[in-house]
Amino acid sequence: MLTDLATPALVVDHAVLDHNLAAMSSRAGELGVVLRPHAKTHKSPDIARLQLQAGAAGLTVATLSEALVFAGAGFTDLFVAYPLWLDDARTAAVRRLRDLGVRLTAGCDSVESAERVAKRADGLRVLVEVDCGQHRSGVPADEAGPLAGRIAVLGLDVAGVFTFPGHSYAPEARASAARDEEAALERAASSLAECGVEPRVVSGGSTPSIGLAGAGVMTEARPGVYVFGDAQQWELGACGPDEIALTCLATVVSTRPGRVVLDSGSKALGADRPPWASGFGRLPDRPDARVEQLAEHHAVVAWPGPLPRLGERVRVAPNHVCAAVNLADELVVVRDGEVEGRWPVAARGANH
Amino acid sequence: MLTDLATPALVVDHAVLDHNLAAMSSRAGELGVVLRPHAKTHKSPDIARLQLQAGAAGLTVATLSEALVFAGAGFTDLFVAYPLWLDDARTAAVRRLRDLGVRLTAGCDSVESAERVAKRADGLRVLVEVDCGQHRSGVPADEAGPLAGRIAVLGLDVAGVFTFPGHSYAPEARASAARDEEAALERAASSLAECGVEPRVVSGGSTPSIGLAGAGVMTEARPGVYVFGDAQQWELGACGPDEIALTCLATVVSTRPGRVVLDSGSKALGADRPPWASGFGRLPDRPDARVEQLAEHHAVVAWPGPLPRLGERVRVAPNHVCAAVNLADELVVVRDGEVEGRWPVAARGANH
Repeated sequence: MLTDLATPALVVDHAVLDHNLAAMSSRAGELGVVLRPHAKTHKSPDIARLQLQAGAAGLTVATLSEALVFAGAGFTDLFVAYPLWLDDARTAAVRRLRDLGVRLTAGCDSVESAERVAKRADGLRVLVEVDCGQHRSGVPADEAGPLAGRIAVLGLDVAGVFTFPGHSYAPEARASAARDEEAALERAASSLAECGVEPRVVSGGSTPSIGLAGAGVMTEARPGVYVFGDAQQWELGACGPDEIALTCLATVVSTRPGRVVLDSGSKALGADRPPWASGFGRLPDRPDARVEQLAEHHAVVAWPGPLPRLGERVRVAPNHVCAAVNLADELVVVRDGEVEGRWPVAARGANH
Repeated sequence: MLTDLATPALVVDHAVLDHNLAAMSSRAGELGVVLRPHAKTHKSPDIARLQLQAGAAGLTVATLSEALVFAGAGFTDLFVAYPLWLDDARTAAVRRLRDLGVRLTAGCDSVESAERVAKRADGLRVLVEVDCGQHRSGVPADEAGPLAGRIAVLGLDVAGVFTFPGHSYAPEARASAARDEEAALERAASSLAECGVEPRVVSGGSTPSIGLAGAGVMTEARPGVYVFGDAQQWELGACGPDEIALTCLATVVSTRPGRVVLDSGSKALGADRPPWASGFGRLPDRPDARVEQLAEHHAVVAWPGPLPRLGERVRVAPNHVCAAVNLADELVVVRDGEVEGRWPVAARGANH
């Protein structure tokens, strides 16, 4: 029973999850792109299976250790969307993944890293990473072709390009980031073709930006957060509070006038807080409340009107669900308010 | 060997840790208070043992699940510095701790929670929580005595009061928060005495504030972060870069002019960033660098001067070390640059 759970606990509403899976499948269908959802959000083979059943072509992961967890659970088509640097530990992981029969693709944004891959993981399939405006990793779109050409001659299989429009995580920036992404992928794909490399895969997509520009040349999208939604997506306008499938069940442990303290601190919710967020999470059932202060084990909520009683339980949507999930060992699955089962966060901590 | 480690990895320099343990022992001795360090920082029985060897009287923990881990490792004097609400799961934990022979003390800031404790954990030792300025949990100092009196008649053993000057985590606020704490504990202790409850324990202390005001009536201090230090303590002036014992070893995976991308993202460092911090962590060996952007697997560092090469390894101090440790399964222990062993983060995830 939900009332027996030790709090804080992460709870997934299966019906909302199903809605989110179906909605993203439809959106990808309308855009004419295949879905390769990012599994770093859930780190759960159970949810990845539901994504494949809903039509996903394969999975995206962030690290080779995540890839190993999903490979161990039977997933065979994995893209590590990250600029791979093959040190000894990562080289061993790539070999293990190949031994397991995984069709592995990795990101690359430099000749130096490609040279190392060529030496240590001959013939690996790679996508060139393009920076479409977040200014994190990746090369400018115009440099994608020349880099792809240099990588191809090393004997690697350059399948195309990918980008992540992370700058879509800001109010008013979703649509412009989507247009940046569309333009950068277009330029990058042309650049590859000009350098004699066919861009078979042109991969993009983030939950807040997907569908806000034309798909253009994009062939696949890699949204992650859409499965659960979170307070950030709610405040960005990318989902409604009723589309948030994962919440943290929390207990009221202390109250003062106008203020409620919950036991869902940063070690349960994660501490992410972009400058534009209204607080450190949101309460889907109390949109007027604000999580004003977050300590490791205390969420201090400004609570208008009559306060809940001590011991009452409330639901908190983390700001960034990927961070919250990586703090938990399991997700409690509910349907119609009843506990239906538990899904292990099998890749929790698999971040190297 | 350090060069064989898969990155990101949390590495503890044993010599610096020893220095920090000795320094805090001296400081407590000078103040005339006993140390009850907060184990939520390290979640490691190995480190807790070193703290007791360095003179600590017992441990502070944040949750009953942490208490169970430390009790299982042989620690018998534990204070849960948290407003305890005894739901069924927590009641079972308290019973288990008592069966294990633990001398358990818990925090309390309401009559309602005390009534529940009296019914479910007869005779428990409690400290009344006082709010000295952070405005999280706790009662105003003047209300501590009346509350203590009402708790005592329920049959609980009210041993005294505790507070946490969390508002010391801001530039220029360390000394004033220490004075707030001193004054609040003084008032609270008097308030208890006026209500016929002897304040045997008067507990306070945070790493940035300890020693910045007189000990006054304080009998014990509960600093946590001091064992490791972190970027926040460095920027607050509470430690120097050479006193940071725990750093995240990270690999350079991508570079652009003026910019270096490390694989130590928020899933390794934690995402804590107070408004006054200069970035999402600091590089002790490169004080001029700034972690300007932090994604789950990317730390984007503004790097003045010649850039490091791809594949080079650098050390990053997390902003908030307690958050980083709770993301890791183990700590790699080094002395003189050589790996000496590994300490499991035994209470990782024990946050309920």
